[in-house]
Amino acid sequence: MREVFQQELREVQDRLVEIASLVTESIEKATQAFNESNVTLAETVIADDDKIDAAAYELDELAIQILARQQPVARDLRIVVSALRISASLERMGDMSTHISQLARYRFPEKVVPKKLRPTFVEMGRLDVEIARMLTELLRTQDTAIAEAIRNEDDKVDALHLSVFDTVLGESWKGEAVDTVDSTLASRYHERFADHAVSIAKKVQYLATGDWIPSDS
Amino acid sequence: MREVFQQELREVQDRLVEIASLVTESIEKATQAFNESNVTLAETVIADDDKIDAAAYELDELAIQILARQQPVARDLRIVVSALRISASLERMGDMSTHISQLARYRFPEKVVPKKLRPTFVEMGRLDVEIARMLTELLRTQDTAIAEAIRNEDDKVDALHLSVFDTVLGESWKGEAVDTVDSTLASRYHERFADHAVSIAKKVQYLATGDWIPSDS
Repeated sequence: MREVFQQELREVQDRLVEIASLVTESIEKATQAFNESNVTLAETVIADDDKIDAAAYELDELAIQILARQQPVARDLRIVVSALRISASLERMGDMSTHISQLARYRFPEKVVPKKLRPTFVEMGRLDVEIARMLTELLRTQDTAIAEAIRNEDDKVDALHLSVFDTVLGESWKGEAVDTVDSTLASRYHERFADHAVSIAKKVQYLATGDWIPSDS
Repeated sequence: MREVFQQELREVQDRLVEIASLVTESIEKATQAFNESNVTLAETVIADDDKIDAAAYELDELAIQILARQQPVARDLRIVVSALRISASLERMGDMSTHISQLARYRFPEKVVPKKLRPTFVEMGRLDVEIARMLTELLRTQDTAIAEAIRNEDDKVDALHLSVFDTVLGESWKGEAVDTVDSTLASRYHERFADHAVSIAKKVQYLATGDWIPSDS
């Protein structure tokens, strides 16, 4: 029984890694679509979000079946419960990629943000992609050092998020309302993407240390 | 055993209703603070968010203990798992109240949004409060008719959310960048608050119909 359970836990872990890979692919394409106003790529991201949602749903069903069949307790139980929460956060990360892609599509053939802010968004996008790759690696290896690294990269994203507001609210901002709206939303989506990764990293960290599972904050 | 389990499920339900009541109080104060730029009230909401987070965390711990002790299967298991998801969404609703309050605090003594948009935000706030009250009632009574009503109110919030963009992007918009940023974020927070309520309503509905639990979308 125990052996079967360990096997099922590995299956859960493999699925989480697989979903994280889909999310990584989605943010890679979303940020490229956003920065290059590539509407075709944007539409691919939007269409492919269903795959992430379906994979998350299937993982949830598997986790619920494991709870019913194996009736785990203690740390084993928390691992399965945390898998349910991690899949929900991964699904939200996919939604952020979709929102970023929708902004690119709406503004096509225009670029979403004015020249002045483009380097900032290129960097935010690069960090989001890096964070998604680290998150996939964290889920694969459970190496908590990666969790720490994700928090550090998230701090950089938060700093860039604030700098977007400084720019938009600064004296020298010449953007029209549409530039202000899109920059505000785009920055928020990039920042939320990284936040979800941090909340997942915390869960993996707490599990590794045998501590409790924090709520999604 | 079964009797004990039913008792524990009632405890879980009572706790969800209690958290929903805290969220209702929080959005009532947040929207009033926002509309009247009442910084004291805004700070109360921000300070009280810890209570919502703590209540959600305690409920999660109770649900995990129930899974360990009672090892429920089938629908009973899904009820406990859905409670974990509902508490996560309630916690996020509290975060939205906090974000709305933070906007009010940052702009104090100024009002957050320009005159032109205030009636729209008063109405969005009224709908969010109404949705929170309905959600509390839904969790108390499990009356799925209320779930439908919440979806209908959410449609109104979505329409107002779009109308904010129409205004901000319209010819006649005279707002400065700061007005555009705050209106965009405030509208997003009001809309997300209602979205989380809908995702909870769907879970209650699916449970009532014995159907599967949808992921957080």
